[in-house]
Amino acid sequence: MNTIKIGLFGFGTVGQGIYHVLGQAKNAHAEIKRICVRDLSKPRSAAVPSALFTDKPEDILDDPDINLIVEVIDNPEAAYDIVTTALRRGIDVVSGNKTMLARHLPELIDLQRRHNAALLYDASSCGSIPVIRNLEEYYDNDLLLEVKGILNGSSNYILSRVFDHGESYSQALDRARQLGFAESDPTFDIGGWDALFKLIIITVHALGEYVAPERIFTYGIQNIHDADIRYAREKGMKIKLVAQVAKVSDTAFTMFVMPEFVGPEKYIYSVDDEYNGVVIRGECYDRQFMFGKGAGSLPTASSILSDIMARRHHYRYEYKKMAYLDRPAYTTDVTLRIYARYRTTDIPAILPFRKITEMYISEGSNYVIGDIQLSDLIARRSELDAPDIFIANLSRFFSDRDVSR
Amino acid sequence: MNTIKIGLFGFGTVGQGIYHVLGQAKNAHAEIKRICVRDLSKPRSAAVPSALFTDKPEDILDDPDINLIVEVIDNPEAAYDIVTTALRRGIDVVSGNKTMLARHLPELIDLQRRHNAALLYDASSCGSIPVIRNLEEYYDNDLLLEVKGILNGSSNYILSRVFDHGESYSQALDRARQLGFAESDPTFDIGGWDALFKLIIITVHALGEYVAPERIFTYGIQNIHDADIRYAREKGMKIKLVAQVAKVSDTAFTMFVMPEFVGPEKYIYSVDDEYNGVVIRGECYDRQFMFGKGAGSLPTASSILSDIMARRHHYRYEYKKMAYLDRPAYTTDVTLRIYARYRTTDIPAILPFRKITEMYISEGSNYVIGDIQLSDLIARRSELDAPDIFIANLSRFFSDRDVSR
Repeated sequence: MNTIKIGLFGFGTVGQGIYHVLGQAKNAHAEIKRICVRDLSKPRSAAVPSALFTDKPEDILDDPDINLIVEVIDNPEAAYDIVTTALRRGIDVVSGNKTMLARHLPELIDLQRRHNAALLYDASSCGSIPVIRNLEEYYDNDLLLEVKGILNGSSNYILSRVFDHGESYSQALDRARQLGFAESDPTFDIGGWDALFKLIIITVHALGEYVAPERIFTYGIQNIHDADIRYAREKGMKIKLVAQVAKVSDTAFTMFVMPEFVGPEKYIYSVDDEYNGVVIRGECYDRQFMFGKGAGSLPTASSILSDIMARRHHYRYEYKKMAYLDRPAYTTDVTLRIYARYRTTDIPAILPFRKITEMYISEGSNYVIGDIQLSDLIARRSELDAPDIFIANLSRFFSDRDVSR
Repeated sequence: MNTIKIGLFGFGTVGQGIYHVLGQAKNAHAEIKRICVRDLSKPRSAAVPSALFTDKPEDILDDPDINLIVEVIDNPEAAYDIVTTALRRGIDVVSGNKTMLARHLPELIDLQRRHNAALLYDASSCGSIPVIRNLEEYYDNDLLLEVKGILNGSSNYILSRVFDHGESYSQALDRARQLGFAESDPTFDIGGWDALFKLIIITVHALGEYVAPERIFTYGIQNIHDADIRYAREKGMKIKLVAQVAKVSDTAFTMFVMPEFVGPEKYIYSVDDEYNGVVIRGECYDRQFMFGKGAGSLPTASSILSDIMARRHHYRYEYKKMAYLDRPAYTTDVTLRIYARYRTTDIPAILPFRKITEMYISEGSNYVIGDIQLSDLIARRSELDAPDIFIANLSRFFSDRDVSR
């Protein structure tokens, strides 16, 4: 087995983490040969030889000595250019860019096949939790029923501060920003997009099906209000931002990202702070629960290192489930029971509930609980962004039917 | 890819589970061609064609059409004969027999190499939790520090009944027997042997080191007494039967199986009933926690199916870490803080404590808490079986030094 010679794109917190972790991993037989950064003039740690740096992608892409590209830059468009160029040239790639992957997976899978190059991206979903590799390799028969979890550490940190430490939502968001858990524009995390992109990648490996982001209902926690928190507390529950994909019949599955009321009997109730937790449910093994740090420089770097080592042993995703003959089809024709809190917007007029089970009207705020088709939520999606509205899932429709967790 | 044609040894609960699960897995491309049982005259389910059964191992071993042997018999000696014969003939094997594996792994690894045959056994450790595959593939760099967990479902079920449901130990054991969680001779489970064998297998894949069972301190829960349960409750803790392997320095690791006082801040505190839970700790990713059903017909069968599917894709364990140059060495020269409860046996005279931090003497029972070398515990192992003695781990010596869980 040869030494892996790495061309690294990006030297932010994750890139620096990789440099650090590779320095520690004595048996890795992998070395960073070149690092491509956007701004060469930026001051760098003295521990990293300045000769490693370049600002020209070709210095890596054209170097025949480099046999693996590791891409950890923020910009999804630039990442797409690097990854597709590398794959077309038959160079293997490790990437952590979930936005880019979630948007372009079908093309990237096709490029891997046509150019016999491998793209690994376990680090893109849930940081150090090996979800993708396990779905691809271990839960690789058609008995898988559901993958559900907390996939975004920043929003979970905020909700955890609110529910476990009694902070207000805005206090919690400020603290998350101070600690670097939330971006200056936190929409990517708290709007549910980060969790959505991870869910799309997970679904490719869970069920062999790619669903484009715009077809999936995604609703974040940015409109959460004291009234919602009070309501959850009264019921002994927490609100968590949950991503899930689940088979709803032998031939169909659904998926979405939205806040959910979670009681203490659920595994994900105890997933606090910046942690991620994923429940994988199958017909025979019931439930598996995986839990770990979902983000951060070193956990992500360590996950990238696992991908690098996997390439050293010629591992590649086989996308076996995409070849199955009886793949389930994506459906939004499922009934969800939701909680919708509103003030001035006339929610009962906007949302075509099939059944309303509870309604509360007061001077400060109102809410309605009822059954609605997921397709109707998608159709009214833009109206639900009004700042006086918050909706959350209360469904127990598939995974919770027969078992308690 | 060809269809996997399976020769199945054993048709107890796990064997029947495999038959059931394979029938459900439409994309498995695997079929059971022959089933070897000890007693042909035993009545079998009408759903299984009687022509499948044989009582002659050669009917499977000599069949050139069979390309995978799945061995799920109880008897470790018979399992050893089947597995070694198959490997010598270059036939791949999937086995769930932890006793056989823990005793013979070095030879079985050697046979795999010499005869270019693969032996997979993820089902042998923690049933449906993919611990071995993850250690082998994902946590495959030398940053791994510790693997610690509840590896035996039966003993955990009993302790769970005691601590969560207020039953006495003997009530709980009776209930476990009634539910089929404990054998008529439960020593294998409650004596810690099942957990030990799993720990040995895990250690080969975690650190690349094989340690024979007789070199490892193993202490079960059979002597647990109301006084111990009361002591734990007073401190807000539970007693769990914990198996662990941990690096204690850059060059050394230790391992043992013993009861441990576990507080609610630990992940494994919440692993109840017949579940298993494993914490994997690394330098960069901190902690991963995996949780799931550790035993039972269908979870185990489902895990066996994952191994069968892995062989269909030519997967084999690489035992990469065994080739590392700087593998840590096994040591028992570590200090543990233990609780030792006794009545007539003179524990302070038997155990050479380096330091005693607490001592309690009463008419009913006595205990001492103090620091002792693991090697001294091993040297006095046989004396600790006296029925009036119970010892449990209170150490916080490596994994708990710097972090709370």
